[in-house]
Amino acid sequence: MTETFVIVGGDAAGMSAASKAKREDPDLEVVVFEKGQWVSYGACGLPYYVKGEIQSLEHLVSVTPEEFREERDIDLRTGHEAVAIDPDDKTVTAESDGGRTVQPYDQLLIATGSESVVPPIDGTDLEGVYTLGSMSDGKELREYVARARDGGTLQQPDRGPACRYLEDCAGPVGIVGGGYIGVEMAEALAANGFEVNLFQRGDRVLKGFSDATSDAVADHLREQDVALHLGADVQTLSGDDRIEAVVTDDDRIAVEMALLGTGVRPRTGLAEDAGIELGETGAIATDTYRETNAPDIYAAGDCAESTHVVTDEPAYVPLALTANRHGRAVGQTVTGQPTDGGAIAGTAAVKAFDVEAARTGLLDHDDARAAGFDPVSETITANSRAGYYPEGGTVTITLTADRETGRVLGASLVSKFGEGAVHRSHAIVAALTEAAIVSDLENYDLAYAPPFNTTWDPVLVAAKVLSGHVQ
Amino acid sequence: MTETFVIVGGDAAGMSAASKAKREDPDLEVVVFEKGQWVSYGACGLPYYVKGEIQSLEHLVSVTPEEFREERDIDLRTGHEAVAIDPDDKTVTAESDGGRTVQPYDQLLIATGSESVVPPIDGTDLEGVYTLGSMSDGKELREYVARARDGGTLQQPDRGPACRYLEDCAGPVGIVGGGYIGVEMAEALAANGFEVNLFQRGDRVLKGFSDATSDAVADHLREQDVALHLGADVQTLSGDDRIEAVVTDDDRIAVEMALLGTGVRPRTGLAEDAGIELGETGAIATDTYRETNAPDIYAAGDCAESTHVVTDEPAYVPLALTANRHGRAVGQTVTGQPTDGGAIAGTAAVKAFDVEAARTGLLDHDDARAAGFDPVSETITANSRAGYYPEGGTVTITLTADRETGRVLGASLVSKFGEGAVHRSHAIVAALTEAAIVSDLENYDLAYAPPFNTTWDPVLVAAKVLSGHVQ
Repeated sequence: MTETFVIVGGDAAGMSAASKAKREDPDLEVVVFEKGQWVSYGACGLPYYVKGEIQSLEHLVSVTPEEFREERDIDLRTGHEAVAIDPDDKTVTAESDGGRTVQPYDQLLIATGSESVVPPIDGTDLEGVYTLGSMSDGKELREYVARARDGGTLQQPDRGPACRYLEDCAGPVGIVGGGYIGVEMAEALAANGFEVNLFQRGDRVLKGFSDATSDAVADHLREQDVALHLGADVQTLSGDDRIEAVVTDDDRIAVEMALLGTGVRPRTGLAEDAGIELGETGAIATDTYRETNAPDIYAAGDCAESTHVVTDEPAYVPLALTANRHGRAVGQTVTGQPTDGGAIAGTAAVKAFDVEAARTGLLDHDDARAAGFDPVSETITANSRAGYYPEGGTVTITLTADRETGRVLGASLVSKFGEGAVHRSHAIVAALTEAAIVSDLENYDLAYAPPFNTTWDPVLVAAKVLSGHVQ
Repeated sequence: MTETFVIVGGDAAGMSAASKAKREDPDLEVVVFEKGQWVSYGACGLPYYVKGEIQSLEHLVSVTPEEFREERDIDLRTGHEAVAIDPDDKTVTAESDGGRTVQPYDQLLIATGSESVVPPIDGTDLEGVYTLGSMSDGKELREYVARARDGGTLQQPDRGPACRYLEDCAGPVGIVGGGYIGVEMAEALAANGFEVNLFQRGDRVLKGFSDATSDAVADHLREQDVALHLGADVQTLSGDDRIEAVVTDDDRIAVEMALLGTGVRPRTGLAEDAGIELGETGAIATDTYRETNAPDIYAAGDCAESTHVVTDEPAYVPLALTANRHGRAVGQTVTGQPTDGGAIAGTAAVKAFDVEAARTGLLDHDDARAAGFDPVSETITANSRAGYYPEGGTVTITLTADRETGRVLGASLVSKFGEGAVHRSHAIVAALTEAAIVSDLENYDLAYAPPFNTTWDPVLVAAKVLSGHVQ
């Protein structure tokens, strides 16, 4: 009898699983319930869509629903919201305009993703307040930008980034949260001529990165005329129908729009209702094969926990590669080839205007101590290319290791855009995944030529300096 | 009693050793004999000096002789050629304009470097035939370029790269050898308006790289109007006093200048005369601490062998990082802290016009089989940035692994300049140094954001594809 693999959620994890399962076992029946109309899209591209560098939302879609249905023979049902899972009867109930479906499964993947966190303050429901978690969010925000142009709010709509040098530049906007979305959207909105205010509760942006990276990005945001409000506790979004101001503990900044970039949380309601256990992080707990406590029910992507490669403990870091990787692994596992999708290192990259940054592993010393390490960090700044090579800049790297064993625990890197902070982080991801020690990393025979680095690549310089501080 | 550490050769390995030894043990007397006037220079920058992107040879010097003497308290004797080593008496004899010195040593480092190979053909001593191994070579070549401009050989001296589009462009030149120097100098000379002929005996340029990389670079050289003569066996450099033509087995190309980029060999005469053993590669054999068969005599840099990290066998790959790393390790070892400078992976990077390439590890299947592996390679081409991100190109990666164990053996990468082939190679160097298997590499949690890669970085794509071909 044909087995049925049912998937709830048609984005990265879900569609990776569907495609892989079907490729490994063409006889498998694969059914996907997606409540929206978009599947398999690159949400990470939304800031560039709003910025105007990507012309159509369709460009963010890697495979269309038609291709999944026709070329990959996947029974993809968009506009179908899964509303209940019965682990005993092994069914999923979904609702659509056409009514209610009760779909039996042999194996089930929950890939319900994450949702934007809306902070518990007044005014978040005012007109002109946005989040950027979904394609429809992106569409609304781009429409706002277009209206601001057309309606004359932006008096120099065609000037783009140069607008900030003009006295009649208009359109102050507020971004609440200085994480990835916050800094990427600062670039996107400034490029469209808005005066950008960025509000961050803590004392630095990109708090998962090192202080040195945060400082470099903050300095650059200020250079780009972003008004950075650090240590700003946003208390209210104020206005009648439309937002008029962001009110913090000690200031009131007039804005015409506000974007909430205050993080995401796993969408776990459907799983919880079915008695599936969450982990300490609040996301769905799984084993290394992404199977939940309920037999034959898997969870992957932004709704699920992963295992951290350094701590070997559960971790929740909802990012695209993990969703793809774990979805794909589940797709292979359900065809009878148990596949461990691998641990995560909490690696992330971001571009903000003309800087790029990456982070990986354990950086925070309290986190490292909680995981049983004795962390030590060093920060170096080194030339990104040979000093005599015309062009280039510097790369600043914070490298963290365990003092006793020398094990590489984490890193944070920042450089001018194009000077290689992000691609250089790849070597450190490799090192910490392989549980390398600092003196191993110091001796890696990395590629060298004057247009690309100094004889000792900045990664090696960081390892060399740090190795003097471990035993 | 004060110990004396004597070093023969004042470039990367020698001066790294001198500096490190003095830093670790300020009481150590450190004497360096350098036959020339230049020390601690970046020979890798010479093509960019000839190109005109670096204004002065001094810019290639990282630390001046005066700084070594005054700030680092190193007894640096330029203009002193070491002519004999007596391992029994533990002395080095050096000659200079001032006469002959017999210098006792407690420990000795031979860092005599390499020299350009001149092929055994007629005409290599003609005027207008150059090599590019030393600072004085660079100076002569740049002077030639300047004379060609001033003397009107180049009729459009100010047009630089655009010259090739002009009918009255002049100055055909020949480069013999399609290795690093060959392709870098093709760029440097074309940028100065010369018509460049590149002669390569084998059927592809950059033969240490993969076929896919060689092909991509060759295609690009042709796009840049370099006349590429592959499979060309250069038989004579022809002319009376000055070179007039490069004669191959089936052609005669008129040139006004020829550059020999036909590789280097270790400079081992001094060591051999002292009874120091060479290895199978023809370079000085050492243990992992770079000590030769003669007690207290070390060898490092371009004159010495290294150990290959994949094969664990002696290898001769004379490159700058190894010289720095091994010199520094010897500097530490002689102060009583035995330091293994690490193995090499034969990693190299090169830029040619607007492409960049890197290679690392074992790529050639015959070499891999000789080392006991059962090699399998796959070549992929993937987007260098998210497909929807405006800008970017592709990265082509050839990844090689052992079929039986899955161990990563080597890689060759190529992309448009700036699209990250070189920095991405760092991750593969790390993987092969850590003896990682392909499925480990496939699961590395590499940084992702649309301006830097696709969700699966090209490195992961290569590993994913190759992992289907290993057991």
